[in-house]
Amino acid sequence: MKDKIVVALGGNALGKSPLEQLELVKLTAKPIVDLIAEGHEVILAHGNGPQVGMINLAMSTSSNSDAGTPEMPFPECGAMSQGYIGYHLQNAIREELLDRDMHIPVATVITQVIVDKNDPAFQNPTKPIGAFYSKEESDELIRNKGFHMIEDSGRGYRRVVPSPIPMDVAEKETVMALIEKNHVVISVGGGGIPVIQEGNKLVGVPAVIDKDFASSKLAEIVDADYLIILTAVEQVAINFGKPNEKWLSELSIEDCHQYIGENHFAPGSMLPKVKAAMKFAQSKPGRRALITSLEKAADGIAGKTGTLIKM
Amino acid sequence: MKDKIVVALGGNALGKSPLEQLELVKLTAKPIVDLIAEGHEVILAHGNGPQVGMINLAMSTSSNSDAGTPEMPFPECGAMSQGYIGYHLQNAIREELLDRDMHIPVATVITQVIVDKNDPAFQNPTKPIGAFYSKEESDELIRNKGFHMIEDSGRGYRRVVPSPIPMDVAEKETVMALIEKNHVVISVGGGGIPVIQEGNKLVGVPAVIDKDFASSKLAEIVDADYLIILTAVEQVAINFGKPNEKWLSELSIEDCHQYIGENHFAPGSMLPKVKAAMKFAQSKPGRRALITSLEKAADGIAGKTGTLIKM
Repeated sequence: MKDKIVVALGGNALGKSPLEQLELVKLTAKPIVDLIAEGHEVILAHGNGPQVGMINLAMSTSSNSDAGTPEMPFPECGAMSQGYIGYHLQNAIREELLDRDMHIPVATVITQVIVDKNDPAFQNPTKPIGAFYSKEESDELIRNKGFHMIEDSGRGYRRVVPSPIPMDVAEKETVMALIEKNHVVISVGGGGIPVIQEGNKLVGVPAVIDKDFASSKLAEIVDADYLIILTAVEQVAINFGKPNEKWLSELSIEDCHQYIGENHFAPGSMLPKVKAAMKFAQSKPGRRALITSLEKAADGIAGKTGTLIKM
Repeated sequence: MKDKIVVALGGNALGKSPLEQLELVKLTAKPIVDLIAEGHEVILAHGNGPQVGMINLAMSTSSNSDAGTPEMPFPECGAMSQGYIGYHLQNAIREELLDRDMHIPVATVITQVIVDKNDPAFQNPTKPIGAFYSKEESDELIRNKGFHMIEDSGRGYRRVVPSPIPMDVAEKETVMALIEKNHVVISVGGGGIPVIQEGNKLVGVPAVIDKDFASSKLAEIVDADYLIILTAVEQVAINFGKPNEKWLSELSIEDCHQYIGENHFAPGSMLPKVKAAMKFAQSKPGRRALITSLEKAADGIAGKTGTLIKM
């Protein structure tokens, strides 16, 4: 039975430098190609936290130096990160496919994700990005550039941007066309380049769309059977790290609500993953989400491990 | 009569900063959409000289600063430039299409162009990239990084990379699939990310593939009817800038050979455009190349202006 699967890969799994990334994408490629070898259609989404942070920091450092390069807005840094990550990721998957004599094209689509300009997140920016600044520098950035800045755990001041909910994928027709043409598609990199709609125009906004929510939205749009959210652990746990820790093979929507209410899942870590999984599982009967580790993805789809979230 | 047209846009037409680029892509979008409105299928290729230079300079400036960002190899900078340029370009074309009530998807494909590792260009790097250095810094770069450096017209020392001939487009199946699905496709940005084949692996190499040659190769691969090479002038001239300057409406392959022999076309400017046009026009009967300005592209295809190169 062939399933259509959206796999959401974390940006941390891609490393902090091009050399690291080139090594890490090889590890990523194997379990992805395992899924493809079993006959599944795979659409790959990925985070870009460390990568877009690095690009944003480099562009901003250089623009403040003698080099005289221009300031680079955050959405443009996101577009760059999609090219940078997609290039390595598509090559690693291509090579792993060819090593197994599978001739399947792999493509990276520069992808924008549409958010609502009235999303309440825009009133409450929470996502820290880029470098740390002193109080004085921070005040200057607020004054000169209108940035929102927060004091970050005693380490200095950082810019914060909103994290709005993804509403639509601007390039959905492209992704679907390539799936129909039997491609492995890499899309919504870093949660997508965040844009708002102004008439016929798409306008980039400084924001970070949670890559698990973006993947969940993409999975809905392409009518996927599965959303696999990859994480550092094989299964979701309640009482995580405590003596009564319990690993879970399955979660109903009711279980999810209960455990979220009991604060079992850490914000910024397992909580958004569980919420994104729930959202997809509830979007249509038969849709299932799986939270597991990269290495266990194929075993998870085979029902051997991972945490399955379904209606 | 509907033609399949590869349009090659110069990197200089895209400006030196994101703000400039956002304005300039609007000017680019109109004539491109004029072609689409007349029923033609358009595949867009573009240069990235100023943009990849800026990204490369910024990444290198930052990696040598306290910011501690990693060094970014040149092919990765190229991949970033494809994301950065494609994002703006696809949006401008999308908006112009929607403004005319045309619902045609526009997609940027991260594209690698395969070069031959035995290309003689690798023995003779000629293409200057990035910042200017002092003699001492230049010697250090030669010693520590194995860079090839040249003294550049008294302005300092610069890294030079080879400019090999494009052999194939790694993502050709993706481009063709999207053309079949009636997309406007943006591909081989900056001449493509230069890669060599090592078994099943594609390995990025520091090189610059001429975007006109890459566009010519892409036009061959997608079996285009036309290759339009956009430039600053409406037509090709012989005796350019002299009293006996003569603008040309048509050039046969024989004419091209003669005028090239007589040094009518400047290296690094009109010469590669004429050569890329010849290559495409000679690749199959019926294929035609047109050299003209962005504004005159539709008139050129209608036979009213431009310089047509055909067998």
